[in-house]
Amino acid sequence: MTFREKWQAAAERNRSFLCVGLDPDPARMGGIAAERYLRTVIESTADLVCCYKPNLAFFEALGRDGYHVLEQTLEAIPAGVPVLGDAKRGDIGNTAEAYARALFDVWGFDAITINAWGGADTVEPFVRRAERGVFIWCRGSNPGARDFQDLTVVTGGGGRPLYEVMAEQAHGWNVHGNIGLVAGVTYPKDAARLRAICPEMLLLMPGLGAQGGDTAAVRAAADSRGGGVLVNASRQVLYAGDGGDIGSAARQAADRFRLEINAALD
Amino acid sequence: MTFREKWQAAAERNRSFLCVGLDPDPARMGGIAAERYLRTVIESTADLVCCYKPNLAFFEALGRDGYHVLEQTLEAIPAGVPVLGDAKRGDIGNTAEAYARALFDVWGFDAITINAWGGADTVEPFVRRAERGVFIWCRGSNPGARDFQDLTVVTGGGGRPLYEVMAEQAHGWNVHGNIGLVAGVTYPKDAARLRAICPEMLLLMPGLGAQGGDTAAVRAAADSRGGGVLVNASRQVLYAGDGGDIGSAARQAADRFRLEINAALD
Repeated sequence: MTFREKWQAAAERNRSFLCVGLDPDPARMGGIAAERYLRTVIESTADLVCCYKPNLAFFEALGRDGYHVLEQTLEAIPAGVPVLGDAKRGDIGNTAEAYARALFDVWGFDAITINAWGGADTVEPFVRRAERGVFIWCRGSNPGARDFQDLTVVTGGGGRPLYEVMAEQAHGWNVHGNIGLVAGVTYPKDAARLRAICPEMLLLMPGLGAQGGDTAAVRAAADSRGGGVLVNASRQVLYAGDGGDIGSAARQAADRFRLEINAALD
Repeated sequence: MTFREKWQAAAERNRSFLCVGLDPDPARMGGIAAERYLRTVIESTADLVCCYKPNLAFFEALGRDGYHVLEQTLEAIPAGVPVLGDAKRGDIGNTAEAYARALFDVWGFDAITINAWGGADTVEPFVRRAERGVFIWCRGSNPGARDFQDLTVVTGGGGRPLYEVMAEQAHGWNVHGNIGLVAGVTYPKDAARLRAICPEMLLLMPGLGAQGGDTAAVRAAADSRGGGVLVNASRQVLYAGDGGDIGSAARQAADRFRLEINAALD
């Protein structure tokens, strides 16, 4: 089963395009062990999501414990829900191969995020794994995304923003149909452009909730069948229960996002 | 002591601009445990280098063992030699902060490589650590580096390659004097351009040896005092002893590179 098939099955079963990001931050978990905290959130939301997205930075920041926490977290995720490792890795060929082994073979992620700054040969070792999903960080959800991604590049037919050029390259590299793009929910027009350039791709859309994005961009980014998106919320689901019942607050927040996204796509 | 001071002291003491990359690849270590293999190389070369550069991908690819191997490897490096964690990390603000904690607080790297694709707010959490070195992956040593880094960007004064625009941004961000650039040794003219844009920065130059780069680019990238570079060789030092004496072969290769670099800078 490919990542895309697994994602499709989860999305249909749960009627959900919501991806929940797993960013364990000790400052916000009220003294509860990270693996227990994340397990509670997963058990409370697994029937409301199409995907979970552990963000490797937060596990790495936990030091040696983080390794164990990530193992326990992956075990807590039901087999039918795909796992997207948010790693943003990117490096030259033989290093990219080592990252692909780490992410796909050691951790067993169904999909990952990568950084394509290094060009074709840095992307290929990931994309070669046809059954895994590979999301290129193309249009960020953050303010600084403008610094490089919006620069006007001289092309044959005039100027266009750099992120569009990256999307076109990605389109050309997508021989196995397993490439997707990251398209911040905070820039609706740009998300629509990415959809136009890559009609067949899955778009991972971060920035909902904590980053101030809303579902207008989700509608703009939908594919011809009214889907093709993974809309991510992390902090506003994970830490919804600030001081109270973690599980039920996370469930409530996740279901609210799920329904908002569905309404936007309807 | 800042990274730059520690690097300067090591470079002067060892009369060396050579950085040795530590990329443990089980397929090339002849059945020797990675931590023992790397320790042998370090003990044989520590008086010939200005820096060591563990490449995190190769440790992560070792799975749970990799964590232990990296800990052991960092312990094996003498206190006077700085350690540059080759991580190429880059992500939005709060994730970048988590990566900064992982790399600087958990691992204690003196310097790291990052990816600036996400713009200013993704770079700032690293650069804020004024005593640490932060090398932006600006001009890669690989063939695909051309795909995006060489694109012509429309600027006020006409068109210029994207990597130059990134270098100019980096120059502006360098308020603590701790930013450096990665400049592949395989593109001498581009390395010279980076030096012209950032006269004061350290340039980390990968691609010597295995990637076919030579020391012409090193000369082109030198600063006004004939230095300011960390020229990296990984495989051609680590695996110089193919089947024979690992330590003495690594030492011989490292010293040859050291002298070649010094000759080019002379």
